[in-house]
Amino acid sequence: MLQEKLNWRYATKAMTPGKAVPQAKVTAILDAANLAPTSSGLQPFEIIVVTNPEMKAKLSAAAYGQKQIVDGSHVLVFAAWDNYTAERIDAVVAETHKQRGTPMDALNAYYDGLKAQYLPRPAEVNFNHAARQAYIAFGVALTAAAFEAVDATPMEGFDPDQVDAILGLREKGLRAVTLMPLGYRAPEGDWLNGAQKVRKSLADLVTEIA
Amino acid sequence: MLQEKLNWRYATKAMTPGKAVPQAKVTAILDAANLAPTSSGLQPFEIIVVTNPEMKAKLSAAAYGQKQIVDGSHVLVFAAWDNYTAERIDAVVAETHKQRGTPMDALNAYYDGLKAQYLPRPAEVNFNHAARQAYIAFGVALTAAAFEAVDATPMEGFDPDQVDAILGLREKGLRAVTLMPLGYRAPEGDWLNGAQKVRKSLADLVTEIA
Repeated sequence: MLQEKLNWRYATKAMTPGKAVPQAKVTAILDAANLAPTSSGLQPFEIIVVTNPEMKAKLSAAAYGQKQIVDGSHVLVFAAWDNYTAERIDAVVAETHKQRGTPMDALNAYYDGLKAQYLPRPAEVNFNHAARQAYIAFGVALTAAAFEAVDATPMEGFDPDQVDAILGLREKGLRAVTLMPLGYRAPEGDWLNGAQKVRKSLADLVTEIA
Repeated sequence: MLQEKLNWRYATKAMTPGKAVPQAKVTAILDAANLAPTSSGLQPFEIIVVTNPEMKAKLSAAAYGQKQIVDGSHVLVFAAWDNYTAERIDAVVAETHKQRGTPMDALNAYYDGLKAQYLPRPAEVNFNHAARQAYIAFGVALTAAAFEAVDATPMEGFDPDQVDAILGLREKGLRAVTLMPLGYRAPEGDWLNGAQKVRKSLADLVTEIA
């Protein structure tokens, strides 16, 4: 079932213009991304959903003209926290207390330790850690798109500084790490449509220590 | 369907000793990880599957004594390439030619550009990029475990140098980035079992630019 969905999906190179993904499907994909696990439950990223045509055109230009961004109906921009801060961690603690009812003493014991570990580190180290968490959610969201029969392109090929500037991300303490145009494949214009999926053999991927 | 599976899973803190995950389920999880997309199709990681009790005990010690590693039947170690090299990229080119039949000229045109971009970069930059790809597969594998009704713990809390040494990863040009014990939850010993899942509201996760 899952395997069938993963085999159906591919890095769509051409989307059908004017064929919009229904809002309920976009929401299901975002819900799945939100359910992805992250280190210490920090969820250190946000997702910007762009449907505005002018903004999509700017993002496409910042992504070396990749057309899926303009021809798909939605672009999800995964943007990781640029750093860990006491305020950001405190907000997670407050939310965990509120949603789960964990006593503040227990939460503080854990998250004070986390602050002692994270806050002295260079921002770049923390950003890279946050980015990895965003990539877990990115993998789950790509899977969710396949379950919704929505095509999605995992996309790292863009100028992050330009995307950050277009969306005003740095001012919010965010940095774009991946894009995910959503839409419906346009098979006739897509050289990758129908191509054999290339993967390692399991023997090359996996080593067993039994 | 997917959402139900994602709500079922949680970062299992206690696994039932002696209850082994069947090989077919482990293979399904590994197949899903192998189907995850990666940047330029490089799949720059390997997965070490540890079932050996002595090795699991060593890994648990390197992970601050976390017991899921010894009580679960399998531990998947996601290990990213320590760097990009011409040889590694050439192997992907050869495999793509073999599996998909893409002409070598077209492949070389693309991957020579990639080499020009990646090979001059510091190893740490390339390792971080490879690690992010491993995290996509990690997210997909966690999802696959839920579909198999197998419990899995996403685990970053370990000493990577120790894990690398225990498994001899550095000699293979690999560095451990995440662990994933697999097994079956032991509800009575797990403080997190049955706890409310804590997540952002979609309003906090998502910003729309329409």
